[in-house]
Amino acid sequence: MTIRQVIVQELPKGELTPAHFALGETETPVPGHGEVLLRTILMSIDAANRSWMQGATYREAVNAGDAMPTYAICEVVESKSTRLKAGDIVAAEATWSDMVVCPARQCQKLPPVRPLSHLLSAYGIAGKTAFHGLIGVGRPVPGETVLVSAAAGSVGGYVGQIAKAIGCRAVGIAGGPEKCDWVKAEMGFDDCLDYRDPGFFKALRAACPDGVDVYFDNVGGEILEKVLFQMNERGRIVCCGAISQYDSTAPTGPRNLPGMVVVKRLRMEGFIVMDFAHEDAKAIRAMQNWVTEGKVRVFEDVVVGLENAPQALIGLLNGDNRGKRMVRVAPDPE
Amino acid sequence: MTIRQVIVQELPKGELTPAHFALGETETPVPGHGEVLLRTILMSIDAANRSWMQGATYREAVNAGDAMPTYAICEVVESKSTRLKAGDIVAAEATWSDMVVCPARQCQKLPPVRPLSHLLSAYGIAGKTAFHGLIGVGRPVPGETVLVSAAAGSVGGYVGQIAKAIGCRAVGIAGGPEKCDWVKAEMGFDDCLDYRDPGFFKALRAACPDGVDVYFDNVGGEILEKVLFQMNERGRIVCCGAISQYDSTAPTGPRNLPGMVVVKRLRMEGFIVMDFAHEDAKAIRAMQNWVTEGKVRVFEDVVVGLENAPQALIGLLNGDNRGKRMVRVAPDPE
Repeated sequence: MTIRQVIVQELPKGELTPAHFALGETETPVPGHGEVLLRTILMSIDAANRSWMQGATYREAVNAGDAMPTYAICEVVESKSTRLKAGDIVAAEATWSDMVVCPARQCQKLPPVRPLSHLLSAYGIAGKTAFHGLIGVGRPVPGETVLVSAAAGSVGGYVGQIAKAIGCRAVGIAGGPEKCDWVKAEMGFDDCLDYRDPGFFKALRAACPDGVDVYFDNVGGEILEKVLFQMNERGRIVCCGAISQYDSTAPTGPRNLPGMVVVKRLRMEGFIVMDFAHEDAKAIRAMQNWVTEGKVRVFEDVVVGLENAPQALIGLLNGDNRGKRMVRVAPDPE
Repeated sequence: MTIRQVIVQELPKGELTPAHFALGETETPVPGHGEVLLRTILMSIDAANRSWMQGATYREAVNAGDAMPTYAICEVVESKSTRLKAGDIVAAEATWSDMVVCPARQCQKLPPVRPLSHLLSAYGIAGKTAFHGLIGVGRPVPGETVLVSAAAGSVGGYVGQIAKAIGCRAVGIAGGPEKCDWVKAEMGFDDCLDYRDPGFFKALRAACPDGVDVYFDNVGGEILEKVLFQMNERGRIVCCGAISQYDSTAPTGPRNLPGMVVVKRLRMEGFIVMDFAHEDAKAIRAMQNWVTEGKVRVFEDVVVGLENAPQALIGLLNGDNRGKRMVRVAPDPE
């Protein structure tokens, strides 16, 4: 029996295109001792996937010929381990494939939440990244102004909603007027600014009359450069991503770094969600409470079909998503 | 009676030159109620002086026609305040002048330390900046590697010596082989690298075989860009200055920021010495102990004569100092 698999045909040097991927078939893998065979249900599509193609980061680099790696929610089909049994739902480092084999000890058993998609959005990487980055790294206090880029994205939307829930002013940055309207109307941000607008810098000043205390940065580059001028003394910049730089051969750095960090006594701090794994239970409890109270709304952007994964990632890098993007490979089990 | 004064004749747009200053004479100022007349003894010459000419920072911008501001050690000549009396030695925000008038409440009375120059070096801004930045912001633990740029400068020399005193590996960066040799031989750094050497990057890797845990950055720019690649995960960058950028019309930012901050989960944090004023007594006590024990040596670079202040600053920006630079305007009182 064979399964489908998306291979990285060639590593991108500049912009990622469908030609960098190829859909193929391969033999269904067979689990060895201590391993499990997993059916992929939902694959998380993240800007970070693109950065994995630029070389080793906090994980090994992706090479040409590899099946594209992904964080995924899977069902155990066959187990050669006492840790897991068929039918268990797990999170795993999988690949863009119908099925994968993983060491059971590297799979994380998931709670019985339905729909499973919520485990990738509000109670998954997106929600946890927003919570840990904002609360654990940015540490805003009520009344402060929180600014977040990629506000219509999976993480940004939660950052602004959490900021509002704890009594901060929430201002977003997104690309294009429709997205900005959506962020304000659907996610309840106090304001949202279009970075493509020539009047962006002026609008930013107007939207943050008391300056910016916490900037949750998903993009880096020119937007970061502009925001630095608006930071308050002792402001904090949560460095979550640099999406503006991943899809580029000639990255540029904000020209006012580190000057502004010195002058304004800023703290810029990077993190990844795994650094706060010991606080995950707290994050999920807080998110569940806010969702129940209606203070945080869950937005998901589900692309159906393994074969559409390349376009789902390329589109994400171009900013065409609204909320957490994922690819559904198989339906939720009963 | 008149006094001498150095005026900023024109604000620099690029490189600072003697033509930006003019030495003139003016009437001796007269203190009003609550004010004191001060005789300038020693003026602190700092890279930050140049940044004040670029616009408002943590203090008001300098404008053309102003007497050049400076942090100085002065003797009270005449007092119209009950806070101070003639003969008191104070630190004050003065100007490049033989005498200035200041509100008494803005003068800080200094302890009876001789020579007074030590109050600008080991027990003054330089020593305190090194101590607070390294200990308070960088927070190294014994066995970690501390890297510091401008290692032959006033602050950098103390950073490395303090790092050694607390059990860290101390590596410096300086301009030119003579300076590097001086840093190693006189200040006892484990190693010191010449950033002008084409093999700088390779030498940096060799000098920091376990990576860099704390980078005390006085320069920003390209050196910061290179150092970022050598930082360990969870490393800390103490942002103390960006001397490479002050004397420039077209600042450039490290191209790997904020990308490296995200990937390596770095913390970059700016500070100025005044932020830690509540810890000054602790800093000075520690420095005095280390100086007494011979673990920290005091290096001072004294230029004599008010009229030489412009060249003292220009030279500093070109890196011609060894240790804390200051200008002596008058001798220490008995």
